[in-house]
Amino acid sequence: MYKCNRKSLETNIKEFAKIGDDYKGGITRYALSKEDEKARDYFVKQMEEIGAIITYDDLANMYATLPGENPNLKSIVMASHCDSVKNGGNYDGILGVISAMEVLKTVVKENILHKHNLVAMIWTNEEGSLYPPAIMVSGMVCNQYLPENISKNYLYDNMMNSKSILDNKTTFKEALNNFKYKGVKDNRLSKEKYLAMFETHIEQGPILEANNNDVGVVTCVLGMVNYTIKAVGQANHAGTTPMSYRKDALYAMSKVIQIIHDELDKLPKDLVYTTGQVYVHPNVHTVIPDEVAIMIDIRHESKEVINQAVEVLKNLPKEVYGCQIEVEVNWTRDTVYFDKTLVNYVKQSAEQLGYKHQYINSGAGHDAQFASYMLPTTMIFAPSINGRSHCDEEFTPLEQCGKAIDVMLNAVLRCDKDN
Amino acid sequence: MYKCNRKSLETNIKEFAKIGDDYKGGITRYALSKEDEKARDYFVKQMEEIGAIITYDDLANMYATLPGENPNLKSIVMASHCDSVKNGGNYDGILGVISAMEVLKTVVKENILHKHNLVAMIWTNEEGSLYPPAIMVSGMVCNQYLPENISKNYLYDNMMNSKSILDNKTTFKEALNNFKYKGVKDNRLSKEKYLAMFETHIEQGPILEANNNDVGVVTCVLGMVNYTIKAVGQANHAGTTPMSYRKDALYAMSKVIQIIHDELDKLPKDLVYTTGQVYVHPNVHTVIPDEVAIMIDIRHESKEVINQAVEVLKNLPKEVYGCQIEVEVNWTRDTVYFDKTLVNYVKQSAEQLGYKHQYINSGAGHDAQFASYMLPTTMIFAPSINGRSHCDEEFTPLEQCGKAIDVMLNAVLRCDKDN
Repeated sequence: MYKCNRKSLETNIKEFAKIGDDYKGGITRYALSKEDEKARDYFVKQMEEIGAIITYDDLANMYATLPGENPNLKSIVMASHCDSVKNGGNYDGILGVISAMEVLKTVVKENILHKHNLVAMIWTNEEGSLYPPAIMVSGMVCNQYLPENISKNYLYDNMMNSKSILDNKTTFKEALNNFKYKGVKDNRLSKEKYLAMFETHIEQGPILEANNNDVGVVTCVLGMVNYTIKAVGQANHAGTTPMSYRKDALYAMSKVIQIIHDELDKLPKDLVYTTGQVYVHPNVHTVIPDEVAIMIDIRHESKEVINQAVEVLKNLPKEVYGCQIEVEVNWTRDTVYFDKTLVNYVKQSAEQLGYKHQYINSGAGHDAQFASYMLPTTMIFAPSINGRSHCDEEFTPLEQCGKAIDVMLNAVLRCDKDN
Repeated sequence: MYKCNRKSLETNIKEFAKIGDDYKGGITRYALSKEDEKARDYFVKQMEEIGAIITYDDLANMYATLPGENPNLKSIVMASHCDSVKNGGNYDGILGVISAMEVLKTVVKENILHKHNLVAMIWTNEEGSLYPPAIMVSGMVCNQYLPENISKNYLYDNMMNSKSILDNKTTFKEALNNFKYKGVKDNRLSKEKYLAMFETHIEQGPILEANNNDVGVVTCVLGMVNYTIKAVGQANHAGTTPMSYRKDALYAMSKVIQIIHDELDKLPKDLVYTTGQVYVHPNVHTVIPDEVAIMIDIRHESKEVINQAVEVLKNLPKEVYGCQIEVEVNWTRDTVYFDKTLVNYVKQSAEQLGYKHQYINSGAGHDAQFASYMLPTTMIFAPSINGRSHCDEEFTPLEQCGKAIDVMLNAVLRCDKDN
């Protein structure tokens, strides 16, 4: 069993953390920004040093390829992203890029024979934090393979016209045209040229740490539904309207949130649901709110459990404190199962390395979930201390990063050998 | 007993409703706008027709004066505002201006003798909907008479620099300097030159209608307190954080709102409280909120009842669903009682006219409340159908508008006679 070099890994984590450093412990590195360019420069420099061939496609996805012994075989790719959310951490995305780089470095340093090309890849704009939506570019590249309801949300033209949330003007297309690493469409990841994709990522949750495991063998990305729940009351003056005359949409919504928790908490404990986004109208302290809307995000592996949760929403009272309650679906997405053979390579790799591991699902979305519609794909998780992510406190100890990479390295070599 | 002319009143209500018409039943007439100017033009035209002398002060407050028989006596003023909120109604404020105009017209038409100058006045920027805050200019004019905690919020320089909510650039001062009716400070309403102020206004609540009364004899403007209540939890990923690990500030706040209602509803039924304004962070559907803040506005005549309500806030649990609950005062304002003699003039006037009336307090703030710190002041309310206000549906039947004006007319004449 091979292992990657911990010193090299440590240096890489530290160096990438400097590119977009927010000087509070984390980074801000928006897709297609100067910081993104510097991160890619650093990727290119290191990969060229080990003899990898650099290419990039029309969406600025980058590929560092170590040619295999048999040029007729498809490539095996290890991919993640180097962009971050605003004030994000030093591990989300970039650890997957570093992992791919460290695998290639180890292969070169240890002179490991491989039939297939081995590729370290960077996906553009996974976070979608400057140009929404998230997992944008994998949605474009894999578009024709996605289920219809998802693919229509990731149409090329719409995505190219996504506007910067900072100036509400600059489009993704404009930023792309000005970006150093915009290449040609022919270089894209494809079913024809690639055999399989692996992605190492931090868990972004507390489960591995709680179970004292070092590695997560990811089996699926959870299905999710997103609904809007609206309370409609009547706006009136805060000072002149007796309490008994009121139809207060915020008071009604606060009751609805209590009911949702009371009912959904009766379902299996691994169901997760979140009311993270709220709209209040007119949101003035002297006016009783006439409309309050929340978005609820519900995720679980089992479609049956998701359906039970949706039933709870549909069975909410139609009227609460004199306000009308309306429930409307925004989108639904089935659970995406990763390729069983690849999952097995990961599991066996962890076993043979003697690393404490477990099966786990991914509650978060990743490029790997869209890629898996196009070609065999799987993921490896490293623990997130305290489950924190998308913040300065995001952290994974060096040794656990190393173990996740070792697992990917040996799983990739097994994939190379078996195919 | 004198009565105003209903035809003239009807025409006036209809004509003012055209100035800033939003073609949905109501109006938008921001202070110092072109529409405000047109409304003032119309006021000037009509008042000049009856021989009133027009003056305006440095804050664009306007005065139409009918000289009394004794030039050595102080003036009696009837005042309100002609600006509106965005998509406001055809009665809030402007009915008070129309009332003052109709009183003067009746005095002229009926040749009623009066010792004191009688003045119809327009206050500038009562709503504060373009240049916050509300009741801005009366706060400036009466500033030195206000309690310290209020006066400091209405300091001249700060108010002059209030920025337009539309472009966040144009200041109140700039708009004032460009306004047709900016005059000199010497013309301001003052304790030295004015004996008393009357303001007719719509109730903006449902009480007069519910009690089948035509006129409200206003005794006070309710005291109020405004607090911020904050729930502080922890932001985490919506998909990766098991429910048992969460500190969801929105879930906690929904419980807090329930507790607030449960507890405050045990206090006297005429207490009113409103949680109209909400802040949610980061307000993203994939992130568990780590901070939710609401503003609560509590009003009652009795300081003791207000104190009981504040105790409820202070006794909220310090922790709810793992989130810290913080309570902080924003401002407090005692109940302002109107001048007993003037209130009595209004009451007797309604009695002698045989109009169904009642004592009522004002839950809303008005220029009269600040004026009352400077000189004897009172208000007369007309009913609001369904209690609606600040909206297209705002309505008071013509005859009830007329009755409120008749009451003011005879109260003013009594005030003229007795002083």
